[in-house]
Amino acid sequence: MKSTKRVHEPAAPADQGPGISRRRLLGTAGAAGAAGLVVGGGAGAGVARAVGDGPTALTTVGSAHIPFEGARQAGIVEPAQAHGHLVAFDLAPGTDRKAAAAVLRRWSDAARTMTQPGNPEVTTPAAYDDQVAYDAGPSSLTVTFGFGRSFFGRTGLTAHLPEALAPLPDFAGDALDPKRSNGDLWVQIGADDALVAFHALRVIQKATGDAARVRWQMNGFNRAPGATAHPMTGRNLMGQIDGTNNPKPDDADFQQRIFVPEHAGGGAGSSASPAWMAGGSYAVVRRIRMLLDSWDHLSVARQEKVIGRRKSDGAPLSGGTEFTPVDLDKVGPDGALAIAGDAHIRVAAPASNGGAAMLRRAFSYHDGIGTDGAPDAGLLFVAWQADPVKGFVPVQRKLDGGDGLSRFLRHEASGLFAVPPGCGPGEYVGQALLEG
Amino acid sequence: MKSTKRVHEPAAPADQGPGISRRRLLGTAGAAGAAGLVVGGGAGAGVARAVGDGPTALTTVGSAHIPFEGARQAGIVEPAQAHGHLVAFDLAPGTDRKAAAAVLRRWSDAARTMTQPGNPEVTTPAAYDDQVAYDAGPSSLTVTFGFGRSFFGRTGLTAHLPEALAPLPDFAGDALDPKRSNGDLWVQIGADDALVAFHALRVIQKATGDAARVRWQMNGFNRAPGATAHPMTGRNLMGQIDGTNNPKPDDADFQQRIFVPEHAGGGAGSSASPAWMAGGSYAVVRRIRMLLDSWDHLSVARQEKVIGRRKSDGAPLSGGTEFTPVDLDKVGPDGALAIAGDAHIRVAAPASNGGAAMLRRAFSYHDGIGTDGAPDAGLLFVAWQADPVKGFVPVQRKLDGGDGLSRFLRHEASGLFAVPPGCGPGEYVGQALLEG
Repeated sequence: MKSTKRVHEPAAPADQGPGISRRRLLGTAGAAGAAGLVVGGGAGAGVARAVGDGPTALTTVGSAHIPFEGARQAGIVEPAQAHGHLVAFDLAPGTDRKAAAAVLRRWSDAARTMTQPGNPEVTTPAAYDDQVAYDAGPSSLTVTFGFGRSFFGRTGLTAHLPEALAPLPDFAGDALDPKRSNGDLWVQIGADDALVAFHALRVIQKATGDAARVRWQMNGFNRAPGATAHPMTGRNLMGQIDGTNNPKPDDADFQQRIFVPEHAGGGAGSSASPAWMAGGSYAVVRRIRMLLDSWDHLSVARQEKVIGRRKSDGAPLSGGTEFTPVDLDKVGPDGALAIAGDAHIRVAAPASNGGAAMLRRAFSYHDGIGTDGAPDAGLLFVAWQADPVKGFVPVQRKLDGGDGLSRFLRHEASGLFAVPPGCGPGEYVGQALLEG
Repeated sequence: MKSTKRVHEPAAPADQGPGISRRRLLGTAGAAGAAGLVVGGGAGAGVARAVGDGPTALTTVGSAHIPFEGARQAGIVEPAQAHGHLVAFDLAPGTDRKAAAAVLRRWSDAARTMTQPGNPEVTTPAAYDDQVAYDAGPSSLTVTFGFGRSFFGRTGLTAHLPEALAPLPDFAGDALDPKRSNGDLWVQIGADDALVAFHALRVIQKATGDAARVRWQMNGFNRAPGATAHPMTGRNLMGQIDGTNNPKPDDADFQQRIFVPEHAGGGAGSSASPAWMAGGSYAVVRRIRMLLDSWDHLSVARQEKVIGRRKSDGAPLSGGTEFTPVDLDKVGPDGALAIAGDAHIRVAAPASNGGAAMLRRAFSYHDGIGTDGAPDAGLLFVAWQADPVKGFVPVQRKLDGGDGLSRFLRHEASGLFAVPPGCGPGEYVGQALLEG
């Protein structure tokens, strides 16, 4: 637990931005407290929502908050929220390093305000923030910022370009749309309330001003808090429990796999990252469309063979329950491998990839019916690692050739972003790069 | 309250569909019960989500359920859920009345199963249901079925076509896409969990078989239960509190405004509806794009003048708090009307429309960036009334001319559907029409 606790860094002697004091923004704030218990959202409707005998979990959706400031950026190790927005920007012509720094400072200030517990009470609200989502709590909002490879050339910072941002190799299963791939800047927004997430997206867009324009933008979702007993390993749109074998924050090597070590830029082993990335991480973003109509034609037994896990509860076909270690050598009574040779969990297993691992923190997406008449739905795959060359790349290379699941997937967009460490009070994300 | 309670009708002597008994579907069901309290979705993640001092509301998202069977269909008077899918189908050539009846029976059976409290325990699951969302509770799932005007001609039922399904008039502000408008059949799905809603959409699509194909499909959302103290009057994407003046189930005339009376088809006053629609309602569906970039250029004060309500808390500009009756005659110290002549709430007020009223039950939508570079976002407006000619049509005609808000809206799709009454055990929705 200790290793993932968010650490507040000492304040840097930077300017404080607009003054923030405590004032009640909304006349309804008192009413909000008085409203008390709302069961199933139905109170006051004249129609009670009955409570059944299914799995019950209590949540405090609105008031849950995740601090923005810390040694690491928020939105990496925390569970993925119910709503996510991914957005990439390209700098406008003429936006130099100083102008880019101003964007990152406005973004950081906005994220700092929006993620405050309770109703942020802003005496001089920024012009880009209409504050409409503040009658909910922050709803576990996180806003995470990253830099794409193209950012460095445009801002004269090529000397600081991490080796780790080398373009991802081509994969046979790729059908990438360049207009929805890459980008100078990347922002990941997550919250457990849809309006809080949308408001954050709009604020970030408006705070950008004329310095950059949106290159692409994608929306995703996960299970609602309290809807299921699987808070960590949700189901994807194929219906499979997904994420069981994700690295756990309690794993001994979790930090070194996911975050760039403090000795970055120094010696052997982590030469791919410069010093400004120490405590940061790299995000691989893939829009992976699921060919659901084809998938749904398979029987559940066939789907389970493709994945290597039972659909109902995620237990590996080698036996046990969801978290039972997978036995890749297990042979069934018929003499065949319990986990098939091309099963997804065999090909993706760290044991099959020299120990390569990444923290997958995905959102599902569903954009209705595609131009081909099939569901435009799948996974906004976001994977975090200290070095993509030791995380995503070897795993995807293996999957690309041998994964039985790959017939049902199409990678339609791709991005790779350097996500710097977090910031303390008065600081902004990326400051060590932009003022380094 | 009594008037909106869902009433179970006596079972009709129809076939029972696939046998349903009680069996635990998932090995994890026990674990679900044991998991107990989940705070902010973060338990087990190694990163606690702190709970702040903002408005707090406890919800039981997964286990909340709304019965499918009843005198009225579910999904009309209940608060709109956090996730919604609207989908329209066109019958395939050769799908006659009998084949359409089989679709409605399969749909009703599927909805009946999916909305059960707890984990539905299905010994012989329908081939179209992979049951993957059943490890959550039903999460307030509702599935609501309607018939478009074109349905009646294609199934030889023109003698039963309600007058109320006359095509909506053209409005000056319309920019309708016919491919995303109307349709033979319409299904509205709502749930407080995204996967539950998506699963229901897939099940409905698969249960359709070859009898119909998807004409259009849209996704929407609302605040998460527990995120805000405004469970009934959420905020739309313009940031305005929306729905304050909706008819309330406790209003004396609520039932007669929203639902077709039992004497339908008989005497005066409700001649627009045949007897099979008694207890049903008409849904007007409009995809209303909000021109958010233009809107956000206005100051908050200007936005408030356009709407007629304060943005922060929804209080009318004539004074008071959100639910204070609007005083359209109030004059300010400057001698001007407190609620401007073209303010949205003046033009839309029942007092300005001969008492016309409808129950608005909308979802916001956000489909990323449109082809024009602006947010493709707005409102999936769904309005319910006993007769559209006395509900939506006069109000929209008035808004179309005089509403200051209309400059910031564009109606991009439209549909009108006859939503029959609910059904009892063994019955299916639309049975009185299809077997009448």
